[in-house]
Amino acid sequence: MGIYEIMKEKNIVLPPAPAKGGLYTQCMPFGEKLVYISGCGSDLEGDAVHGKLGKELTIEQGQQCAKNAVLNLLSVVDANVGLENVKKCIKILVFVGSDPDFYDQPKVANGGSQVLVDLFGEAPSRSAVGMVSLPGNQPVEIEGIFELK
Amino acid sequence: MGIYEIMKEKNIVLPPAPAKGGLYTQCMPFGEKLVYISGCGSDLEGDAVHGKLGKELTIEQGQQCAKNAVLNLLSVVDANVGLENVKKCIKILVFVGSDPDFYDQPKVANGGSQVLVDLFGEAPSRSAVGMVSLPGNQPVEIEGIFELK
Amino acid sequence: MGIYEIMKEKNIVLPPAPAKGGLYTQCMPFGEKLVYISGCGSDLEGDAVHGKLGKELTIEQGQQCAKNAVLNLLSVVDANVGLENVKKCIKILVFVGSDPDFYDQPKVANGGSQVLVDLFGEAPSRSAVGMVSLPGNQPVEIEGIFELK
Repeated sequence: MGIYEIMKEKNIVLPPAPAKGGLYTQCMPFGEKLVYISGCGSDLEGDAVHGKLGKELTIEQGQQCAKNAVLNLLSVVDANVGLENVKKCIKILVFVGSDPDFYDQPKVANGGSQVLVDLFGEAPSRSAVGMVSLPGNQPVEIEGIFELK
Repeated sequence: MGIYEIMKEKNIVLPPAPAKGGLYTQCMPFGEKLVYISGCGSDLEGDAVHGKLGKELTIEQGQQCAKNAVLNLLSVVDANVGLENVKKCIKILVFVGSDPDFYDQPKVANGGSQVLVDLFGEAPSRSAVGMVSLPGNQPVEIEGIFELK
Repeated sequence: MGIYEIMKEKNIVLPPAPAKGGLYTQCMPFGEKLVYISGCGSDLEGDAVHGKLGKELTIEQGQQCAKNAVLNLLSVVDANVGLENVKKCIKILVFVGSDPDFYDQPKVANGGSQVLVDLFGEAPSRSAVGMVSLPGNQPVEIEGIFELK
């Protein structure tokens, strides 16, 4: 089954690729068959919550934000190299805007990992860490490395 | 001298590979002869301190945590590809749970780098940065890239 | 035009390569034609401000710090492999020491990206995130991956 069929089956709908928020390249090829995707925030059009985990937001809201950030990542991948040419996600680094007393970054990150498992049948390697603040007060930012076929 | 002999000589004892704390792959091959190891915390069975540097913990305690996190990393490497097949550690990213006024992340990270120097005869490239919070309130989390022979 | 001529034209002057602040390798080759450069702070001799964005420092000061950190990165690259052998910068990870209410990390990071655009004609992929504290209270730390010709 092709990846766009999987997306249809799993009800995964890609947003438009996010606008660049600065002076960087969104998708950068490197090495053999790898691309680096610049950090994507969790804002989607019509679905943007702001604040920090452990303060304004619940874990469930954070999981939705992590899912949205992964959707943004995938949208950048699709616009630049085409998701049908992607083998899998190698790695994500999950930045979670956090209060000093919030320690559940992995639970939040799982909301993003799940989408990648659904699509590629395998979870990426990952770190999930707490950030004192993120661009635009978005609760989650995720960068990733994808491997092409 | 093989790496397991070096470990015996240097008194480096690997813990059991840590349990996964979420939806991710602990050891992910990529590119040519490289593996990404997901962020490992500093908790060892019977040796787990929690808190932040500059607040509850001394630099010496932080160094022990960085050492423990590297031992967890190495344990994941060993369980997945066998340490005898590893050439060296290319890079570590050292996340140090920190109070806003704590600025000695490199000293803390050295506790982990030293183990890698002992084993591979060469220090990896590295960043060491202060985090507002880390999973489970562990003081140190480290992710790494290793090169296979 | 060679890269040293571009630097002359753009008035980009490299500082001496920064001293190592711990147990790590400043420039580590990996994969095919890639080097990892360990995190460089923003301190230059005679040009070192300390503090956090959103607290003691303005965005303009932060941009100068990001520029200085990139100059330190480039200086390490030049000392180790020679800038004339570099094709481009693949990726930077920009750590910005931030107050919990500071959300303009991308604007700060642009100060560093601009130098790379000037030199290589292309911006790297990038993440820019807020850190509760950085080594030596430097406002910006940047690590990078460069591709050799």
